[in-house]
Amino acid sequence: MPMNWQNELKAVTFDVFGTVVDWRSSIAREVNSLAEAKGFSVDGTEFASAWRALYQPAMSRVRSGELSFTRLDVLHRMNLDQVLEQFGIEELSEAEKQDLNRAWHRLSPWPDAVRGLTRIKNRFIVGSLSNGNVALIVNMAKHAGLPWDVVLGAEIAGHYKPQPEAYLKSAEVLDLEPRQCMLVAAHNSDLLAAAACGFKTAFVPRPTEYGPDQVTDQSPEADFDIVAEDFVELAVHLGC
Amino acid sequence: MPMNWQNELKAVTFDVFGTVVDWRSSIAREVNSLAEAKGFSVDGTEFASAWRALYQPAMSRVRSGELSFTRLDVLHRMNLDQVLEQFGIEELSEAEKQDLNRAWHRLSPWPDAVRGLTRIKNRFIVGSLSNGNVALIVNMAKHAGLPWDVVLGAEIAGHYKPQPEAYLKSAEVLDLEPRQCMLVAAHNSDLLAAAACGFKTAFVPRPTEYGPDQVTDQSPEADFDIVAEDFVELAVHLGC
Repeated sequence: MPMNWQNELKAVTFDVFGTVVDWRSSIAREVNSLAEAKGFSVDGTEFASAWRALYQPAMSRVRSGELSFTRLDVLHRMNLDQVLEQFGIEELSEAEKQDLNRAWHRLSPWPDAVRGLTRIKNRFIVGSLSNGNVALIVNMAKHAGLPWDVVLGAEIAGHYKPQPEAYLKSAEVLDLEPRQCMLVAAHNSDLLAAAACGFKTAFVPRPTEYGPDQVTDQSPEADFDIVAEDFVELAVHLGC
Repeated sequence: MPMNWQNELKAVTFDVFGTVVDWRSSIAREVNSLAEAKGFSVDGTEFASAWRALYQPAMSRVRSGELSFTRLDVLHRMNLDQVLEQFGIEELSEAEKQDLNRAWHRLSPWPDAVRGLTRIKNRFIVGSLSNGNVALIVNMAKHAGLPWDVVLGAEIAGHYKPQPEAYLKSAEVLDLEPRQCMLVAAHNSDLLAAAACGFKTAFVPRPTEYGPDQVTDQSPEADFDIVAEDFVELAVHLGC
């Protein structure tokens, strides 16, 4: 890495779902609790995976222009109604559905996330660069203790990743060039899209994001600027 | 104050220039340092006041539609060129002008600001709701240790305060009703505009924002929800 590389870098931005927080076990836990309280039967992990499986298709409708920009909370709710029907769950009131939809605001971080972010924040601007809407990311940060300096991403840009506007607009509102920004993600596709916009890139694998049988994103598929085991090792690579 | 008032409140948002930070003495200090380094003569305090006097007229050009939305850093720079001419200062290079313009990113907080914000953050979302652009507010926060959960305001809304969109869009991205939000400001006009949008209001006077001879905004001119001497007293009023 050239000597001036870190001097140029000003902002370290993060993908959130899967990279910072463990959505699968968090959602599974909430679904299982709700099932127990309401007396219906469901496999929370399967429910979480089914709900998440509708995530990319819903955003694709926005990316294609079929839907105007719609915040993720609204897409999550449309998807929730579909998954509840798919699993034959009819026991939930409207208030309970609304609360379950906000389980995405209460996701738990991976064990290294807060410690690593806190170290990186001492030297760089740390920002979320997520497809999650601002309220979701802010509420999650309050819940999980994530010390963001700034909430960027899809809602600020009016475009969902991996569309280039999501990365470019995030750099622009920080008044930075893309090369002064880094994206950290557990997903090769996100990093490739950011790199194409001129961002620096750091791959941090989360090999069980999708469970013990996960085969995707186990290793970097391109020459990213940093590859680190977790956010603490990432902080070390960044000189923090 | 009714019992449920604090339960309803979720986000405490803050005007920044004058309310959180002391722009006048900060800018004066930077101008005086620069004058000494470059060997020209200027009264830094007068320069700061003259620069700030162009702030509202510049935003008015955006509010009226004469200019499309233009971030405050750009307006500050247009105004700086005008003030430099007015004061007959010709000694600055382009890089020095750019750096001086970023003095607004390096303003110092009032002595109670960080302590009060940190307490309020334990219970509520704390957000900036400023006419300053995102980069300005984020860089200022890094410099001054301001613990914002979220940066809201003019650039996010595409409208300058006191236009209602600035307040309403800030509440909307938090997925909150205006009545779940409070604006804290040292300026009656800002609070009146926020109240008209349904925000709760807190007046914290900064009686020397414009210097020892300041006559405006010495006291609340309407029935605001809270009046407090400083941010620590504000935290107490908010039950933090």
